Amino acid sequence: MQQIARNKVFGGWQKRYRHQSQVLGCEMVFSVFLPPQAERGPVPVLYWLSGLTCDDQNFVTKAGAQRYAAEYGLAVVAPDTSPRGNDVPDDDAWDVAKGAGFYLNATEAPWSQHYRMYDYIVEELPVLINETQPVDATKCGIFGHSMGGHGALTIALKNTERYHSVSAFSPICAPMQCPWGEKAFNLYLGPDQSTWQKYDASVLIAEVDTKMPLLIDQGTADDFLSAQLKPELLQAACDACNHPLTLRMQPGYDHSYYFVSSFIGDHIKHHADALCAL
Amino acid sequence: MQQIARNKVFGGWQKRYRHQSQVLGCEMVFSVFLPPQAERGPVPVLYWLSGLTCDDQNFVTKAGAQRYAAEYGLAVVAPDTSPRGNDVPDDDAWDVAKGAGFYLNATEAPWSQHYRMYDYIVEELPVLINETQPVDATKCGIFGHSMGGHGALTIALKNTERYHSVSAFSPICAPMQCPWGEKAFNLYLGPDQSTWQKYDASVLIAEVDTKMPLLIDQGTADDFLSAQLKPELLQAACDACNHPLTLRMQPGYDHSYYFVSSFIGDHIKHHADALCAL
Repeated sequence: MQQIARNKVFGGWQKRYRHQSQVLGCEMVFSVFLPPQAERGPVPVLYWLSGLTCDDQNFVTKAGAQRYAAEYGLAVVAPDTSPRGNDVPDDDAWDVAKGAGFYLNATEAPWSQHYRMYDYIVEELPVLINETQPVDATKCGIFGHSMGGHGALTIALKNTERYHSVSAFSPICAPMQCPWGEKAFNLYLGPDQSTWQKYDASVLIAEVDTKMPLLIDQGTADDFLSAQLKPELLQAACDACNHPLTLRMQPGYDHSYYFVSSFIGDHIKHHADALCAL
Repeated sequence: MQQIARNKVFGGWQKRYRHQSQVLGCEMVFSVFLPPQAERGPVPVLYWLSGLTCDDQNFVTKAGAQRYAAEYGLAVVAPDTSPRGNDVPDDDAWDVAKGAGFYLNATEAPWSQHYRMYDYIVEELPVLINETQPVDATKCGIFGHSMGGHGALTIALKNTERYHSVSAFSPICAPMQCPWGEKAFNLYLGPDQSTWQKYDASVLIAEVDTKMPLLIDQGTADDFLSAQLKPELLQAACDACNHPLTLRMQPGYDHSYYFVSSFIGDHIKHHADALCAL
């Protein structure tokens, strides 16, 4: 693992690393913010999953999360959104392949060799983080935006022993019922929709035995709201099984990081409250 | 003037406009943040001047200023750093020509036709802003970063009837005595150094009759500190004429927007305190 950047920010350090991923079969880059409190001992850690077309830098440079993470004393890990490099198969479309890993393990050729973002996020990266960074792995939360909101919700619901808090901005709430999800799942998982269900938060919510509360912010002026994101389907699924969901419809906000930055403080507080109570 | 983007952020609006500049002889783009308070009446206005290689977007997306501007109720205008377009002469170097207008009026060919950023910032843009945006022009501050810190200091010192507060991050404090400034001033103003003095804050400070206090933040780990920025020369010039300067050397911080974002709240408060007391 090689450190490739290091900038002081809000009294802590924004760091960037390159490493060889065994799970993905390629070199990957990720970012970590360490708050000032990390100099005195291990701190709780949040994983941020980004959306379509992003890498680790969009969140790090645009969300303004460091201010709040420094205030509450949380580390924040920001991975890339797909495997990378010349050996990794790609597609001309912007909503599948590189920059669009959908946080799943692909089973279809040619994607199954490298597109294993679920295992990378849940298994490989946390081991690396826990070994090399001053974090307390027993206090771990996950959040994300859009495709990364889908990733955060599905990963948290299936791994409640590892993640103790979850939230999302404008998540793809029911990927089996929207064009982005249908396209990606067909490509990565094949046409048998029974294999899709474990990657759909609105399906999973009825099957898991956790009541971990969900916090979701969604802008009402988001161009993708009605066709792709569909929070009403997750709301209905949560209502049906009495799963606690705080869905905040934010008037006038769109899908951008301007929206994320406006409410990132609330989300970091949501995680800090849950993790510091452990 | 054409609005080309509009995003809600922290309860206000980040807007982006394109217009034809008469002073620069080209089409220009600038950004304006309007805080929620602007819906109820005119608000004080800050002008942010960016550094080498930047356009209007670096500050807008990376500095995290909207949060504080919304809190204090200030508009923030972020112009580009040079004239733009295919008709504007350029240079292969990154530290002169496009992205590097140095906030002066060039007198040498071929630069003198378009490179008139001083007049654009001081004369043309404020007229446009005051006519089209809900701002109170009697409460106006200016700040900036690096080359833009030089711009903010020199412009404020020479136009105290227009600007009532000033601050800078890692400014080029004595451009006549550093490679960036010497190169740019030679190119734009020619070899006669007597014409350079009106664009050098460390020279101007002894000549102006204002005692407007200067706030400057400077990272100690800034790669450009000793060769280009030289705050010690401005400190000495201020000491010699008893001009109030608060120069804060911030340990471990570099020249990036991570640094700017860490202290932008202090700067916006500095301006808000001055402008709201008018």
